[in-house]
Amino acid sequence: MTEDSNQAGKVAIGLVIVFTGHGKGKTTAALGLLMRARGHGMKAAMLQFIKHSRSNFGEHRAARLLGLEITPLGAGFTRTSKDIEKSRALALQLWGIAREKLASGEYEILILDELSYPLQYGWIPVEEVLKVLRSRPWGMHVVITGRDVPPELIEFADLVTEMHEVKHPLRKGIKAQRGIEF
Amino acid sequence: MTEDSNQAGKVAIGLVIVFTGHGKGKTTAALGLLMRARGHGMKAAMLQFIKHSRSNFGEHRAARLLGLEITPLGAGFTRTSKDIEKSRALALQLWGIAREKLASGEYEILILDELSYPLQYGWIPVEEVLKVLRSRPWGMHVVITGRDVPPELIEFADLVTEMHEVKHPLRKGIKAQRGIEF
Repeated sequence: MTEDSNQAGKVAIGLVIVFTGHGKGKTTAALGLLMRARGHGMKAAMLQFIKHSRSNFGEHRAARLLGLEITPLGAGFTRTSKDIEKSRALALQLWGIAREKLASGEYEILILDELSYPLQYGWIPVEEVLKVLRSRPWGMHVVITGRDVPPELIEFADLVTEMHEVKHPLRKGIKAQRGIEF
Repeated sequence: MTEDSNQAGKVAIGLVIVFTGHGKGKTTAALGLLMRARGHGMKAAMLQFIKHSRSNFGEHRAARLLGLEITPLGAGFTRTSKDIEKSRALALQLWGIAREKLASGEYEILILDELSYPLQYGWIPVEEVLKVLRSRPWGMHVVITGRDVPPELIEFADLVTEMHEVKHPLRKGIKAQRGIEF
């Protein structure tokens, strides 16, 4: 990229965007980007590393209505040792799909929802993620969400927002609400 | 609401949700909620207090595809004294629409995007907003976005997330990107 092409705003610059922190709105903001991308007719997909493969939440239903690709391939957050093995295998399988999509050149935006967890657990090496991100097609945006994104990835990213929890209704004893949390 | 009905998760509890802070992702997270609501077949609308009434960004195009209601009725962020008068009049007009929608009982989720600005400028009194929120139909969720939401509204809200800017590409001299920022 030359300084000129950037200033003219004609060349798309692929950004690595991170939504992290312990507050609400990380996946939700990524969904908003997906919706915006769809409005522009851009090819976009969301891969979900934790959400169960049989998930059928509001976002999955809306995605079908919009013809958007959302692929949940996790085992949820429950943690027995058997679950952990299954989660690990699913995370590696989904990372394989992510690598293919990243290399394909077919997508303008790829969202790796809750990728931070398999990184934290050491299932996917951060160095490998950085390598794949560095070699992705020019102009492709990648959005990564989840708590506690490793510092190497924060350092590499172009846009990082930390969602900070100021107040949460679960503290008041109010349960998760349909249309808001799922 | 009794403790039981809450625990059974059968009764929808209308939440007041705030996305604030100086980081990215406030409006985008609200869009994600709108998309999720649509997936559940819930009636939802977004009123935009700053975005220009002729806005046709990614979210507006996607909203049309999904049959979602997004009403931008602002004059943008430019500020000459004439603009300010126009912005004020538009904000009051949109607040009138918001009050009608809040009272109508027709909506399950109403998003007041960038409401914080007319509150800050003193165009709409915070006390009036609190009064209207208190008297809204049971079970109705309201989402408010924008920087510097007044403390009275933060105090009143059930769920508050502050989007904190860790890193922003404009600092690197990269312009706003289609599908990401608009």
